[in-house]
Amino acid sequence: MVAPILSDLLTEILIPVCAVIGILFSFLQWYLVSLVKVTPEPPQSSKKNGGYNETLIEEEEGLNDQNVVIKCAEIQNAISEGATSFLYTEYQYVGIFMVAFAILIFLFLGSVESFSTKSQPCTYNKDQSCKPALATAIFSTVSFVLGAVTSVISGFLGMKIATYANARTTLEARKGVGKAFITAFRSGAVMGFLLAANGLLVLFIVINLFKIYYGDDWEGLFESITGYGLGGSSMALFGRVGGGIYTKAADVGADLVGKVERNIPEDDPRNPAVIADNVGDNVGDIAGMGSDLFGSYAEASCAALVVASISSFGINHEFTAMLYPLLISSMGILVCLITTLFATDIFEIKAVDQIEPALKKQLIISTALMTVGIALVSWLALPPSFTIFNFGSQKVVKNWELFFCVAIGLWAGLVIGFVTEYYTSNAYSPVQDVADSCRTGAATNVIFGLALGYKSVIIPIFAIAVSIFVSFSLAAMYGIAVAALGMLSTIATGLAIDAYGPISDNAGGIAEMAGMSHRIRERTDALDAAGNTTAAIGKGFAIGSAALVSLALFGAFVSRASISTVDVLTPKVFIGLIVGAMLPYWFSAMTMKSVGSAALKMVEEVRRQFNEIPGLMEGTAKPDYATCVKISTDASLKEMIPPGALVMLTPLIVGTFFGVETLSGVLAGSLVSGVQIAISASNTGGAWDNAKKYIEAGVSEHARSLGPKGSDPHKAAVIGDTIGDPLKDTSGPSLNILIKLMAVESLVFAPFFARHGGLLFKIF
Amino acid sequence: MVAPILSDLLTEILIPVCAVIGILFSFLQWYLVSLVKVTPEPPQSSKKNGGYNETLIEEEEGLNDQNVVIKCAEIQNAISEGATSFLYTEYQYVGIFMVAFAILIFLFLGSVESFSTKSQPCTYNKDQSCKPALATAIFSTVSFVLGAVTSVISGFLGMKIATYANARTTLEARKGVGKAFITAFRSGAVMGFLLAANGLLVLFIVINLFKIYYGDDWEGLFESITGYGLGGSSMALFGRVGGGIYTKAADVGADLVGKVERNIPEDDPRNPAVIADNVGDNVGDIAGMGSDLFGSYAEASCAALVVASISSFGINHEFTAMLYPLLISSMGILVCLITTLFATDIFEIKAVDQIEPALKKQLIISTALMTVGIALVSWLALPPSFTIFNFGSQKVVKNWELFFCVAIGLWAGLVIGFVTEYYTSNAYSPVQDVADSCRTGAATNVIFGLALGYKSVIIPIFAIAVSIFVSFSLAAMYGIAVAALGMLSTIATGLAIDAYGPISDNAGGIAEMAGMSHRIRERTDALDAAGNTTAAIGKGFAIGSAALVSLALFGAFVSRASISTVDVLTPKVFIGLIVGAMLPYWFSAMTMKSVGSAALKMVEEVRRQFNEIPGLMEGTAKPDYATCVKISTDASLKEMIPPGALVMLTPLIVGTFFGVETLSGVLAGSLVSGVQIAISASNTGGAWDNAKKYIEAGVSEHARSLGPKGSDPHKAAVIGDTIGDPLKDTSGPSLNILIKLMAVESLVFAPFFARHGGLLFKIF
Repeated sequence: MVAPILSDLLTEILIPVCAVIGILFSFLQWYLVSLVKVTPEPPQSSKKNGGYNETLIEEEEGLNDQNVVIKCAEIQNAISEGATSFLYTEYQYVGIFMVAFAILIFLFLGSVESFSTKSQPCTYNKDQSCKPALATAIFSTVSFVLGAVTSVISGFLGMKIATYANARTTLEARKGVGKAFITAFRSGAVMGFLLAANGLLVLFIVINLFKIYYGDDWEGLFESITGYGLGGSSMALFGRVGGGIYTKAADVGADLVGKVERNIPEDDPRNPAVIADNVGDNVGDIAGMGSDLFGSYAEASCAALVVASISSFGINHEFTAMLYPLLISSMGILVCLITTLFATDIFEIKAVDQIEPALKKQLIISTALMTVGIALVSWLALPPSFTIFNFGSQKVVKNWELFFCVAIGLWAGLVIGFVTEYYTSNAYSPVQDVADSCRTGAATNVIFGLALGYKSVIIPIFAIAVSIFVSFSLAAMYGIAVAALGMLSTIATGLAIDAYGPISDNAGGIAEMAGMSHRIRERTDALDAAGNTTAAIGKGFAIGSAALVSLALFGAFVSRASISTVDVLTPKVFIGLIVGAMLPYWFSAMTMKSVGSAALKMVEEVRRQFNEIPGLMEGTAKPDYATCVKISTDASLKEMIPPGALVMLTPLIVGTFFGVETLSGVLAGSLVSGVQIAISASNTGGAWDNAKKYIEAGVSEHARSLGPKGSDPHKAAVIGDTIGDPLKDTSGPSLNILIKLMAVESLVFAPFFARHGGLLFKIF
Repeated sequence: MVAPILSDLLTEILIPVCAVIGILFSFLQWYLVSLVKVTPEPPQSSKKNGGYNETLIEEEEGLNDQNVVIKCAEIQNAISEGATSFLYTEYQYVGIFMVAFAILIFLFLGSVESFSTKSQPCTYNKDQSCKPALATAIFSTVSFVLGAVTSVISGFLGMKIATYANARTTLEARKGVGKAFITAFRSGAVMGFLLAANGLLVLFIVINLFKIYYGDDWEGLFESITGYGLGGSSMALFGRVGGGIYTKAADVGADLVGKVERNIPEDDPRNPAVIADNVGDNVGDIAGMGSDLFGSYAEASCAALVVASISSFGINHEFTAMLYPLLISSMGILVCLITTLFATDIFEIKAVDQIEPALKKQLIISTALMTVGIALVSWLALPPSFTIFNFGSQKVVKNWELFFCVAIGLWAGLVIGFVTEYYTSNAYSPVQDVADSCRTGAATNVIFGLALGYKSVIIPIFAIAVSIFVSFSLAAMYGIAVAALGMLSTIATGLAIDAYGPISDNAGGIAEMAGMSHRIRERTDALDAAGNTTAAIGKGFAIGSAALVSLALFGAFVSRASISTVDVLTPKVFIGLIVGAMLPYWFSAMTMKSVGSAALKMVEEVRRQFNEIPGLMEGTAKPDYATCVKISTDASLKEMIPPGALVMLTPLIVGTFFGVETLSGVLAGSLVSGVQIAISASNTGGAWDNAKKYIEAGVSEHARSLGPKGSDPHKAAVIGDTIGDPLKDTSGPSLNILIKLMAVESLVFAPFFARHGGLLFKIF
């Protein structure tokens, strides 16, 4: 075999260097955001803004009103404190669970060889001696904990940044939509780069540390590393579900009383649930999503590494080629860095209608640049030809074939992003049709919205199918894993435009609460409408990559569990398949009901306050925000346990009692079914939200004929928006964690299942 | 091999005799219904009614008002004419399609051996000589046409009976709820027995006629018979989709303007869409469902027969054992006949709250009796031991094992029925919770309703999974086919209680339109509420059996296409799986959007009439019913084509271009995904409908706190009900046809795909 061009030493240097660059870049962005002061300043002369869109940015507004600044700072603090305190409580609960699960991992994996400390022949390379199963148990547990902790850090940092940026975005909106956009986008970038770099760095360090013990036993080394993915995704699950319930209970509750009954605007400070709603955006959409995408990234890397370790890279100990997945991610950081500069320094947003194109350009530029980056990495880091493990045999693969695998994943991501945009942005006919159907009331709105969501599944599924077919044909399961990595390689940019959404949403809330002028609110609303679309795009990426990641993990699981075929026509597999396809429904039922019940409680509390606090409606008395925060907190902590348990326990129960064949069926079934519901739920929700915003903004003749706020079509649109909330922010995005997590958990526990699983069939 | 106890001659006699008994019984029921006169009669003294529920049946109402009778007769005629004329038009359209598709079948299948008229060695039993492929092509085409025609007759007769019975039920409601119940139920029984017996008889005759040509070539004989299932299901697809769009466009349109905007009651004669709505019940819920269940029955029989023909039954030409599926259905007719007597002659309905239990008892009694019946048939018609084809090998099966297969299907059906009842009847907490959530508006109602539908999937899926596992383990694919037949063996009773629903619904409509007293309307409403639940139960059966039928057909397809394994871990299969899982979403998007668009048109027309026809709202002028009928007709005929084409063309395209492996994936994917959406959609819709009825009826303290009609919670409930309409009556129930039809089509075209399929992969 010819060695790759890149030497092992250089690889060992390049990866951490890229990670550090990413971290430094995110600090730089943070610094730039921090230049916007939320403390009162002496009056300054305003700078020129250039030819902004006349209707919204014809002049700078209230720049010298120091009261507004103080008020914004106060609200920001309240939101930040609420979010921090919730996350602390949540992490305490989840912490207990994580410790218990860590012990479980140790016990299950340790029991495979009865806790023996003797070395054993390797599973794939029988001639070689591998470390004992007990070592795998210990190191898997350690990497599980590390993954969980990294995920916590990712979510927490994201939240901190977002709550740091929201008031700053509001204040910048006084200067114009362009300034506000840059602030929100930079803050998103802080999160994106920090997460991408942090995830890469920790993984790199863990591999190098574990290598000290494992030495030449790469099979065991990378088997243990899979715990990292499991830890990351377990945390993400609770983050998404808990955060999702929190935010939507508050949002739905606030809207139902505030907008529908009391006819007060969104985010009105008189609404007692308004702080909880804004806190929710940060713990759900930001922290939850951060953990989620970190989880995807960790799992895709682990899936690729574990397959690579039993391919020629691992067998021949080619370190550079082995770390190809990490090199791709390193390249991704550099590419995203350049891409970000296009948004912050090269193009300038001068009008509201330039926001969405600017964000779209980010996707296109990063994808185009990354294609070159992948080619470069594939050329430098891979030998021209090598072999990949393919269910028992070794398949010969060329380096350019692997380039195609990564690239097709990357471009499939772009396709999914564009399709999502088309179906959720109010610039196109699908959302406008939904808005139009509000004419005949909420029922037709819901029917059209659901139909839109179902329809939006078609092209993404074809894109995923093509990626799977091509990458699988070229490089078996490794091809799929790197295709997933390809889709996630621009994660820094993806997260940046994704986090931008909730930050803008919060900024709008703060503007409303601080009593800033209508025009400022309009500017933040415009940012937010684009944010809804980008949030949907982000979810599209998350779901698409989750599908690929799960399949890769599934393949790795099947390899490790020593199954040669997963034949649908055997009853064991088929019942797994049909039950697996049911799980996303069960899970969604739980999460949606949780949001519904918590929202009911919220509604009662908000109504109570409006009825019992004299002067609240008139704005002379302050509402009791804390009780609403408590309702959301309690509901989410209590309600996240059953769906969490469903996902975490299913693989354990199925694997232990029904065995690996049925478990394979469950994984395949939940994957193919879950991905559809996830895409349709998140797009339906996004479309309803933007249909409502379309009517509110009244930009076109058609939109004005449906409005204004408070008209019957608008009321119908608000109902659709409210229904979409749990779909797009709770059940939908949690589903991609469901499918990933069950797959990675099966992979981690595969040795146990293969040895001790299928009890029920063994008994009968 | 020991011969079965039942001789071949006796089998040849018993099956047609049972079918004829079924037909005679249905004529008897028809005669009993016809005793209720819709022509004015001389006044007569009213008979004693017994101790009926005091609030509703304390006295007989308006028995001597001859004007009411005349009015009812008029309305009935209008509905009957509308339905007949729609079905004629629909059948003309579909007829053209059927002829085209018949030609396609002939060409595709004929081309397998290049239209050669030479005999060929059999596929499975290579030593034997089989009829030429051209014969298969011709006879498949013939049986396709016969299946389609039988399906048309089934749907059409069902509609005729229903429109014959609806006014009679209304008139009987004057005498009390018990009388009305019996009339509606008897009419349902007419349809149930006629369909079950007709389907059995035609199939029996076709087999015997084909046998004259085929002689000992049973492989070819039963291969050709599969066309019967395809014909039945193709018609059913268009019937369900076309009828579903028709009925829901009218229903949604009528409700949106009538109930929501104009605040007039449901079925008010002033509403221009009211006749279209009532016609819709008959063409959608009755004719569509009749075709659907007939299709399931035909396909299950075909799947069982085709597998049997290559098992020891077919190889050894054991005619009685071969016709075991038909004997089960014959026994089913007898069992259902006895069961019906329980409802019509033994138990008596004396109060409203006895309706649901009476219908439930039908399910329990028929299941219990049928279990004995199956045991009897299995003992008499099967040799003690035989072999079943199992993907290339022959599996030894005992007769009692086959009994278990049929019985588990039957009981799984009962479980599905009960779970459906629990989730859709307003006697239990799930629907009451949904009703309660209307307190906070339509949004929470929709969230809770969707969650309910998702949750209702869990137990049915486990029931299906257990049936599959047990029957597959005991008797391979044949076991699954007979399990499906077991579930469908009580089809006559199932159809009776299913058809009862729309008949009661119509009866209520007629009462309202004829201006009958409030109390009569309450009685028909009570019948209708039970009817919603039974309709949901019927859909549960249809979906559950469709899942089993499809799997059996899938198995038969795989056998005929000579695939040995369907390995999820091959890219060809996996992309099929994920795309297949997407198809139900695509299909639902089309049908829901169609209903939505047609409803919008209907709304505009109804609004126009209210605005432009002076005196309409006051009841002094008559609305223009015909225009609304035309809107529904045009919409359904136009809009049924794209979803129909999607379902019919997918197997052809996938099989021809991607080959049998990918097609297997598509079938498995659409099956496991479609069954979930179908169950959840139909239960969600049923629950919303009954939540609304719960508030309207105001039977409990809780229900009254949400009402009365016109209150905010009631308005929210109406919105939910409207959204549920296309879910439960258009997209949901069509999905089970989607999964069955694609499977049976693949089976029919299997020889072609196996020979010429997979063009795309062959080229590259």
